[in-house]
Amino acid sequence: MKISPNAPAAAGNALVEKTISILETLRARRPLVHCLTNGVVKDITANLLLAVGASPAMVEDAAECEEFAGVAGALLVNVGTLDEEQKKIICAAIPAYVRAGKPWVLDPTAVGALTMRTVFARGLLQYRPALIRGNASEIIALAGGVSQGRGADSGDSSEAALEAACALAMRTGATVLVTGEIDYVTDGVRTATCANGHAVMTRVTGAGCAQGALAAACMASAGDAFSAGVATAAIMAIAGEIAAGYAPRPGSFRAAFIDEIDRIDAGIIREKARLAELPWQRNRSGCA
Amino acid sequence: MKISPNAPAAAGNALVEKTISILETLRARRPLVHCLTNGVVKDITANLLLAVGASPAMVEDAAECEEFAGVAGALLVNVGTLDEEQKKIICAAIPAYVRAGKPWVLDPTAVGALTMRTVFARGLLQYRPALIRGNASEIIALAGGVSQGRGADSGDSSEAALEAACALAMRTGATVLVTGEIDYVTDGVRTATCANGHAVMTRVTGAGCAQGALAAACMASAGDAFSAGVATAAIMAIAGEIAAGYAPRPGSFRAAFIDEIDRIDAGIIREKARLAELPWQRNRSGCA
Amino acid sequence: MKISPNAPAAAGNALVEKTISILETLRARRPLVHCLTNGVVKDITANLLLAVGASPAMVEDAAECEEFAGVAGALLVNVGTLDEEQKKIICAAIPAYVRAGKPWVLDPTAVGALTMRTVFARGLLQYRPALIRGNASEIIALAGGVSQGRGADSGDSSEAALEAACALAMRTGATVLVTGEIDYVTDGVRTATCANGHAVMTRVTGAGCAQGALAAACMASAGDAFSAGVATAAIMAIAGEIAAGYAPRPGSFRAAFIDEIDRIDAGIIREKARLAELPWQRNRSGCA
Repeated sequence: MKISPNAPAAAGNALVEKTISILETLRARRPLVHCLTNGVVKDITANLLLAVGASPAMVEDAAECEEFAGVAGALLVNVGTLDEEQKKIICAAIPAYVRAGKPWVLDPTAVGALTMRTVFARGLLQYRPALIRGNASEIIALAGGVSQGRGADSGDSSEAALEAACALAMRTGATVLVTGEIDYVTDGVRTATCANGHAVMTRVTGAGCAQGALAAACMASAGDAFSAGVATAAIMAIAGEIAAGYAPRPGSFRAAFIDEIDRIDAGIIREKARLAELPWQRNRSGCA
Repeated sequence: MKISPNAPAAAGNALVEKTISILETLRARRPLVHCLTNGVVKDITANLLLAVGASPAMVEDAAECEEFAGVAGALLVNVGTLDEEQKKIICAAIPAYVRAGKPWVLDPTAVGALTMRTVFARGLLQYRPALIRGNASEIIALAGGVSQGRGADSGDSSEAALEAACALAMRTGATVLVTGEIDYVTDGVRTATCANGHAVMTRVTGAGCAQGALAAACMASAGDAFSAGVATAAIMAIAGEIAAGYAPRPGSFRAAFIDEIDRIDAGIIREKARLAELPWQRNRSGCA
Repeated sequence: MKISPNAPAAAGNALVEKTISILETLRARRPLVHCLTNGVVKDITANLLLAVGASPAMVEDAAECEEFAGVAGALLVNVGTLDEEQKKIICAAIPAYVRAGKPWVLDPTAVGALTMRTVFARGLLQYRPALIRGNASEIIALAGGVSQGRGADSGDSSEAALEAACALAMRTGATVLVTGEIDYVTDGVRTATCANGHAVMTRVTGAGCAQGALAAACMASAGDAFSAGVATAAIMAIAGEIAAGYAPRPGSFRAAFIDEIDRIDAGIIREKARLAELPWQRNRSGCA
């Protein structure tokens, strides 16, 4: 099924205003975002959080993780370089956040491409992440399907993953953000699309993983996960699109992208956002 | 008490000339700086050391750490992502440096905000660091007080931490560098201020932690810890201030800052440094 | 013996065309490169691989490493921050790649400067790496000699290491790439030189380590290790030389270098490459 990322302007406008409101809340609140993430992406993850106005924390001791759940705004769990030690820490941290009533975000990096992390990430779903962010292959695999992922790269289109995303959302209660040329955000009932972005974003290591941390920052600043997912997609894609306009190669793009995350505001979002909500009948065929 | 960072020009000038001399010794000697630091900041830490003219080494095996104490110029211990494994390595490395007669620097990242690392960092003071570098909340907590720190961010002003810094210096024999809008450097008797810097420096992950490594490089190149502390504050803040002048957003600032660390020299320091020494009577009221 | 990096133009031209062919194969094939590397350099390593057209994977669990050997194009083993845990993973991964018939590359970071890693890296030679990449001191030490290395810095010239490199190549069957002002590539029979590059490359942390990953990407795209070694030297040094032309300081150089790795193509290589092959009689005296 071909889904066109168009929708009545009114629905799109409501998503835009909600995104602006979340960004402004985030900057006022400066949430501490606890990142249990992989060793490749910690630098860009922390810098993106600082640039958007949040405060990163990479606490990695099990005892400190439990203590930190009391003060942090949200937790990110990324399985990019999973090993036995990290599994223990993740399994100590998530229940602490659940007990503290704080949201957590799952980034199933390279799930589908490797067995151990696929089994582990599926098991984490019982702890009910508020948001799940992944590329198409990761979302298809996490939902139980057979994906074409290769390492951390997607071999499937985000549109092809929409059915899996909806099923995953309905089964777990999470909002699912599927990244791709068009980003899809669904809670199983409503589905939004974001048509911003630029291909160079896939050529900077950790850009996707850092978006998982941005999702946690938005969760800590939003009333609902669906709006947080839309804001996560929009802030990332708009900043990337603007940066790629003057720095299209990956080395200089990385610095420009962080600058644009720092610079983005209500005016820029209103001017640039290409957000839409799929009408219900389309949504049902996508999600049935 | 309000402390004004002004002082007789002569004292300030002596601090400036000492800073220049330490930088020139550092570049001639190219000290190996052994960094036991957190996983988020290794890249910027190593790049800052290379840019200033030192040589970074992130040796992390206990046996190699002991061997390395024989060749390195100084050790940095940063507790940013402390876990059980790192505690063991730190506890093997520090005594090796003490035995070798080499200085070590303590960076109490997020001490105060989290219990385990607070207890651990306070315990390390028995090994007598030459220099301690932290933000106000970290220094207050390390000294035994109650701070307002949140994650790695300070919730206290550097001025508010001066009393704790002086007490800590007198108790441990270390020079203490408290970073903030005004940086304070004290050995418990003399106190200097550095009024350079720019707020964007707090929005690049690892800039503070990398300054801990710069402190170790300066220690390996200076005759005394107080002068090394002043040089550490001045080199960092001047380079940051210049870089922020043409790259005020955090992504491009990071590259510009490393460029300015590479470029800084006697002429730039003489032109830009705003160093001062607090007169004795003020100093006593600050440190009593 | 003084070796001039000059050779009949024809031989040089053949090396140039081979380098272009490997780069084009790499970009068409987009090999997954599995990097077991140190914690300081993962970011620049992954970004260099993405920029050149390969796909990085930093899988670090022993079980996942074995599974990944089935899909990856090549493995890089870098001993920069070796510890007991990493030794176990390396010792699980290499045999899996050997069984899968996939090449692996050894980067003996700081071998010679530290005992434990020197013993370990020499032991790995029994698994027959396809390529070994190191600076002069590392190659001399790996080959069993006494080097002047200090931390990760070379204290020897690449020319001085050529004899050790040839001996190492003949003993292990690997092609050896010795980096320096002039890079040497030898399989023990043929020896090529690359005279491109710029000194600022030694002042960006991880540039050398990232070249080890580039070597693995070239191995996954080349018919023979000697040509892969030459391509690795040439792509790196040409991109660095161009970037240093407009960004000579290390902070901005880093971004410019990644941009030039993205931009390099057949035309640029033909215009810039200073590759040569040592004539046989010289080669013998170098390698005898």
